[in-house]
Amino acid sequence: MTRLPAALEGLILELMRLPGIGRRGAERLAVHLLDAEEERPAALARALERLRREVRPCARCGNWAEAEQCTICAEPRRANGQLCVVERPTDLWAFEAAESFEGCYHVLGGALSPLAGVTADDLNIDALERRLDSESIQEVILATNPSVEGDATAHYLARRLAARPVRVTRIAQGVPLGGHLGYADAGTLRLALEGRRPLS
Amino acid sequence: MTRLPAALEGLILELMRLPGIGRRGAERLAVHLLDAEEERPAALARALERLRREVRPCARCGNWAEAEQCTICAEPRRANGQLCVVERPTDLWAFEAAESFEGCYHVLGGALSPLAGVTADDLNIDALERRLDSESIQEVILATNPSVEGDATAHYLARRLAARPVRVTRIAQGVPLGGHLGYADAGTLRLALEGRRPLS
Repeated sequence: MTRLPAALEGLILELMRLPGIGRRGAERLAVHLLDAEEERPAALARALERLRREVRPCARCGNWAEAEQCTICAEPRRANGQLCVVERPTDLWAFEAAESFEGCYHVLGGALSPLAGVTADDLNIDALERRLDSESIQEVILATNPSVEGDATAHYLARRLAARPVRVTRIAQGVPLGGHLGYADAGTLRLALEGRRPLS
Repeated sequence: MTRLPAALEGLILELMRLPGIGRRGAERLAVHLLDAEEERPAALARALERLRREVRPCARCGNWAEAEQCTICAEPRRANGQLCVVERPTDLWAFEAAESFEGCYHVLGGALSPLAGVTADDLNIDALERRLDSESIQEVILATNPSVEGDATAHYLARRLAARPVRVTRIAQGVPLGGHLGYADAGTLRLALEGRRPLS
């Protein structure tokens, strides 16, 4: 079998490093880019270079930002005393897409995971404590993922912040909206029962 | 809802122009590239720029090439008198991957399609006739796709080359290897019957 041109093979190998893209998919994308109008691959290359040059962590909360602070921290009306602590910027954007939270965020950069070697020192927790010292925050909402690591991180943070004059809460866990009880796992059903609240 | 950083949104929009990638998939790829090691997006950008700079059509057959001629045309032992005519370089590479053809190729760049406005003048046919004038070719194998457009193109070429002292053949159509007759469409079954051959 004759070799593909090296530049084409090189692009295929780079595309295969992306999540969810195998050899066939990478070939399809590379051939598309080779056949596309003249400026398409260059436009994609420019967008990639711009990404790293222009997007950096917000100095205050760790969200993606184009300036010193992200657009959320830069808006004074968001400093309403509520601080939502999440693992990743993608979690923050999920809350923003849901348009259900009007306070500020703090991005930890992950969750505690002894197996993966992630300790409290690897997370953005010192900055969180400095914010509690300097900003007027009444409630810290722990919105780490409902996983073993996310729960462990929430409990660790709750203990670490216990001495402070701030309300520390955890987002509710239970059956998701539109879900079917028949398909819910045992852990979710247990949490849904434990977290039951009076109706009226 | 707060806007994503413009550079991130820009990359997402570029990725969405690729085939089979929607908004969600593009977001996933862009976030992966943002979180990846420092050099990954730059490596992908370089591979994209290299693609257009280094890959060009072969001056003889229209295959992808890194030099004046592609690696197949550059190999003297492939000039065995057989010329396989395909629509696209990807078809050529499918034959190469099958390791079933040892002659040379000619890439038309598409198939006749009145609806899409593709006429004979848009295909690489003049170059094919010049090759038949100058090279020693005994057989032209028409390997356009088994579609309405591919068949029309094969018939057009067969008529156009009829006066030349060259054998013009069409690849066989029938049931594919490993296929089930119960799942084959009516057209394929008809062609498989019409093309039947004596078994010894």
